[in-house]
Amino acid sequence: MIGLGYWGPNLVRNLFELESAELVLVCDQRAEAVEQVRRRYPSVRGATSTDDVLEDPAVEAVVVATPIGTHLELARASLSAGKHTLVEKPLADSIAGAAELAHLARERGLVLVPGHTFLYSPPVQAVQEMISAGELGDIYFISTSRVNLGLHQSDASVVWDLAPHDFSILLYWLRETPTYVTALSRGCVIPDTPDVAFLNLEYASGVIAHAELAWLAPSKLRRTTVVGSRKMVVYDDTSIEPVRVFDSGVTLRDPGTFGEYRLSYRTGDIVSPRVDVSEPLSLELDDFCRSIRGGSQPRATAELGLDVVRMIEAAERSLTQGGARAEVAAAESLSGPSA
Amino acid sequence: MIGLGYWGPNLVRNLFELESAELVLVCDQRAEAVEQVRRRYPSVRGATSTDDVLEDPAVEAVVVATPIGTHLELARASLSAGKHTLVEKPLADSIAGAAELAHLARERGLVLVPGHTFLYSPPVQAVQEMISAGELGDIYFISTSRVNLGLHQSDASVVWDLAPHDFSILLYWLRETPTYVTALSRGCVIPDTPDVAFLNLEYASGVIAHAELAWLAPSKLRRTTVVGSRKMVVYDDTSIEPVRVFDSGVTLRDPGTFGEYRLSYRTGDIVSPRVDVSEPLSLELDDFCRSIRGGSQPRATAELGLDVVRMIEAAERSLTQGGARAEVAAAESLSGPSA
Amino acid sequence: MIGLGYWGPNLVRNLFELESAELVLVCDQRAEAVEQVRRRYPSVRGATSTDDVLEDPAVEAVVVATPIGTHLELARASLSAGKHTLVEKPLADSIAGAAELAHLARERGLVLVPGHTFLYSPPVQAVQEMISAGELGDIYFISTSRVNLGLHQSDASVVWDLAPHDFSILLYWLRETPTYVTALSRGCVIPDTPDVAFLNLEYASGVIAHAELAWLAPSKLRRTTVVGSRKMVVYDDTSIEPVRVFDSGVTLRDPGTFGEYRLSYRTGDIVSPRVDVSEPLSLELDDFCRSIRGGSQPRATAELGLDVVRMIEAAERSLTQGGARAEVAAAESLSGPSA
Amino acid sequence: MIGLGYWGPNLVRNLFELESAELVLVCDQRAEAVEQVRRRYPSVRGATSTDDVLEDPAVEAVVVATPIGTHLELARASLSAGKHTLVEKPLADSIAGAAELAHLARERGLVLVPGHTFLYSPPVQAVQEMISAGELGDIYFISTSRVNLGLHQSDASVVWDLAPHDFSILLYWLRETPTYVTALSRGCVIPDTPDVAFLNLEYASGVIAHAELAWLAPSKLRRTTVVGSRKMVVYDDTSIEPVRVFDSGVTLRDPGTFGEYRLSYRTGDIVSPRVDVSEPLSLELDDFCRSIRGGSQPRATAELGLDVVRMIEAAERSLTQGGARAEVAAAESLSGPSA
Repeated sequence: MIGLGYWGPNLVRNLFELESAELVLVCDQRAEAVEQVRRRYPSVRGATSTDDVLEDPAVEAVVVATPIGTHLELARASLSAGKHTLVEKPLADSIAGAAELAHLARERGLVLVPGHTFLYSPPVQAVQEMISAGELGDIYFISTSRVNLGLHQSDASVVWDLAPHDFSILLYWLRETPTYVTALSRGCVIPDTPDVAFLNLEYASGVIAHAELAWLAPSKLRRTTVVGSRKMVVYDDTSIEPVRVFDSGVTLRDPGTFGEYRLSYRTGDIVSPRVDVSEPLSLELDDFCRSIRGGSQPRATAELGLDVVRMIEAAERSLTQGGARAEVAAAESLSGPSA
Repeated sequence: MIGLGYWGPNLVRNLFELESAELVLVCDQRAEAVEQVRRRYPSVRGATSTDDVLEDPAVEAVVVATPIGTHLELARASLSAGKHTLVEKPLADSIAGAAELAHLARERGLVLVPGHTFLYSPPVQAVQEMISAGELGDIYFISTSRVNLGLHQSDASVVWDLAPHDFSILLYWLRETPTYVTALSRGCVIPDTPDVAFLNLEYASGVIAHAELAWLAPSKLRRTTVVGSRKMVVYDDTSIEPVRVFDSGVTLRDPGTFGEYRLSYRTGDIVSPRVDVSEPLSLELDDFCRSIRGGSQPRATAELGLDVVRMIEAAERSLTQGGARAEVAAAESLSGPSA
Repeated sequence: MIGLGYWGPNLVRNLFELESAELVLVCDQRAEAVEQVRRRYPSVRGATSTDDVLEDPAVEAVVVATPIGTHLELARASLSAGKHTLVEKPLADSIAGAAELAHLARERGLVLVPGHTFLYSPPVQAVQEMISAGELGDIYFISTSRVNLGLHQSDASVVWDLAPHDFSILLYWLRETPTYVTALSRGCVIPDTPDVAFLNLEYASGVIAHAELAWLAPSKLRRTTVVGSRKMVVYDDTSIEPVRVFDSGVTLRDPGTFGEYRLSYRTGDIVSPRVDVSEPLSLELDDFCRSIRGGSQPRATAELGLDVVRMIEAAERSLTQGGARAEVAAAESLSGPSA
Repeated sequence: MIGLGYWGPNLVRNLFELESAELVLVCDQRAEAVEQVRRRYPSVRGATSTDDVLEDPAVEAVVVATPIGTHLELARASLSAGKHTLVEKPLADSIAGAAELAHLARERGLVLVPGHTFLYSPPVQAVQEMISAGELGDIYFISTSRVNLGLHQSDASVVWDLAPHDFSILLYWLRETPTYVTALSRGCVIPDTPDVAFLNLEYASGVIAHAELAWLAPSKLRRTTVVGSRKMVVYDDTSIEPVRVFDSGVTLRDPGTFGEYRLSYRTGDIVSPRVDVSEPLSLELDDFCRSIRGGSQPRATAELGLDVVRMIEAAERSLTQGGARAEVAAAESLSGPSA
């Protein structure tokens, strides 16, 4: 386990309690961070140099939870050292970097998992099952708000920080990468560091999506609406009823003689299905271990992690170009090494 | 009163009960609609031709509540007949039309009010007072959702139907017209009739805004978030606490020696101020009458109505151009007659 | 229609629009109240003396919406004049009075309906259907809160004012009259006029129920919880999802060898069934008319109205006796005339 | 620390992290429970016999978190061994027992704290401050719901389990013990083990209170309403806005000439004051340590703990007597030893 910052302790706790793995070594440049973990978990060894981790033959797999700008270098080193690797989201800070990691893992036959924890969230999983079973019909559009007061990241915009959550969920649900992204943002508090962003996504299938992201908001919102031709779903990660299914919709009946459309509105029952309350992080780490042992594909694949970076890169490009529509880079050209 | 469709009866009821005016005549092409009103209000006369209204010397002022496409023609006729005129929102279906009406009213010295009823909503008014008193500090951004299941309009997109509400509120609060609009929409139910739209607005002052509009949604949302440098406000028109003020924010303290920004988060009390429960439509009609009698400026001016049409037109242009950023047409060139 | 006070105008509007009846005459001692109605409904005749109503052969049925203390006298006069009668809740201000009216109606073959409007509320009806279909299993207990800020009645306690709603609903759902009532109240604002009351009800079947009633409360609550052995229901009259069904419960499995109980908790889906939005008052008046024309039993029977008064009388007796358990008066002895 | 059951681990975690104390020894009859804690906190010693705890000179203070029926014996032994003692709520399972412990602690000059954790909850503290500052005016009544699905206790009724929370809060807020308790309950799932109870409380000052307690409910409710003559407060422990202050009320103006009361309703702002998010259990343990070191009175005194038991005992007596009003036992006679 490399990186004991804000998110690290959650990973440590889950790794320690995981039955499918043993937490051998924790590593951080700051000796006091390592010591703090070791006071709690004396059985775990500590290190302040990543070399100690990568050269340790007892280490089979590495979890990287460091600032975004270091993901590529550390994950490259970890894979090069023959370690299965889980990298916190996003996989890397560039398409080329993410593609290189995906390529490297494939080449070496190693498991590479981007830490898109939301894919392991039971409500996200429940919605995915409804969509893939056709229960919602054709998906018309998806709109999501992920806003809160805090935490401004010093090394990243709100897009790099929060969009990976929504983009990974959208990829998991829609199994389709958007073709265009249009973005509007503002650095309200720190100049040149966007802390609010409105993103519009277009898909070849006709689906459209919107994401509102902010580190500045009166209250926490994590609300996603999925509107399908048969049913609609609200996924609210802050609610004790995280998934609500609305049996509502509009049906277009045959246009009348004079081309007038006749619509039929339907408002039916609302169901909050029972959803498991397992901790997503624990499920993610377990999936990582299972993929290592069993050779199965993890739910969060390196390819999905690369797609997320392609989407972020397009959003950032739109911002750089003053809000112009930005095409999402094609995936085909990305399979080779980045250097 | 011309036009007794979906919204007409609300106008009739309020006009009938208004102390500052007398409802003389109601008019609709459909005789049965006129008769239905007269059964309820036998003292009111009826007409099926607008000429009967416009030629009637007892009629001092006209309220037009007909489909959008007829606003220009009817309001032009009304003003030309020397009647003060209130036109349901939007003022007209084109910038040229709206500008012509504004010009005509000014020329004739008549009161012309676009029916932007939300400007008369007590919660909207309360937020306006907070903003103009500087209570929220500088406005960083505004995000709004106006979605519901229904009512698809046959003669208009969701943008023409719903955006006038949010655009008029934004103009009233910010006293600034945006420079650019970027829009993404989809006609989910009726091809080529957008029923969901995501609009991004940019202002010269740096403010950004977002509006989500839909006729397709699992539940009714009318929620607007205003984020300022000092406080934040949530205006929710469906709540019994329609205005909530959050004394929360982030303060940027002097950057440290190495250029690192230091942020200070503040989360304080939340206040739901007591807001009047007066009916906005009644206040709007009363303001119309007062402006006629007293020569005062109505809250909803023709210029504001024209600005709304400029914003809608830019949004529609962005849609036509596949989501490109569309500049809002300059106001200066619009003061002359449209023909 | 006799009595044009606070509630009267709602009755007038619904009677006027009712297809199954014609509103002939409205009556109130205060001539100005009569005039106000007639301005709105010029086709309706007015009267200031009840004799004018009762002696009018065109009047087939009478609706009494006057202060509670006058119900007995007016309903007695109306029934004695051979008119079918709907009396606002409660039927009378004493058991003897209510029993006399029920007896008189039966004797004369007239329809007598106590105005327990909530029995006609679609959510109340939906819960009744679930209970009678056994969907909730055995009913364990029911707990209800009916509180708001206002309206203190000058002629009645909060028990006489609000308890008829909950008592009628409980009778309709449980089809059982409680055996004992224990009550605690306080006159917070006006001495000796209870404006808050906590009522505990015991039933022979083992069901227990609680009602909290108040004219003094920070916000409006109309929330009833029904806990059954199979499912639980929350009926919230202020919510846009007025009925919510929880597929939750506890099952007692066979006690183990050492007498220890083993419990199995179950938390399943939550369903908000689609419920009609018809106006209960209109359904109530229509049921009254239908019972007159068709000879069918109305949903709100005189017997149910009498049971409500028996329950209120027991609650008031408990209050008078300082909170002692008060037995609900037996029904058998009540069938005769009260004088 | 004696007792490592359901609640024990929370105490262990807080004791371990407490700066004002050192966790020396954990004790439970079940060796595996002790081992589980020691795996997590290897620096802490373990014991399976309470004698090991009480005879250990390194142990200055003891925390007892065992089943209710063992509180008296263990706390008596702890105090007799000269240890300051914190006993989980309720202090003991009888008035005599609780009085004996209070007496013993006083006699020995030891700190005895009943574990009424809610007194250390920041929202409860905030409401206490408002009440004692007179901000709410005179308290009219308090109504509380504490219901959830689960956890049936095998050794206690819902009253012994949940009422200590509400009773301790009421004592802390009102600084008055009620004179009478009336209770209604039912054992829905396990015969003779009440799992739902409705309690009515009367105070000499005129205040009345109601508590609804249940282990059977569709959803978790922890909502308390305090209605005062000047303001009203809702304390909801499940909300992110746990305290809401309503500037609402009714004022009684001078009765008119004919004895009619004239009321004036007032509905003002609603404020959710910022409340700390400290963990109550940590504050409680710190208060315990501070009282030991500094000789100050803890917030949760032994006398308050005894008052809680007096109230529970009255509630249980009411239940035994079929719902009769039960007088709360006088406090004066309780100061002596119980044997």
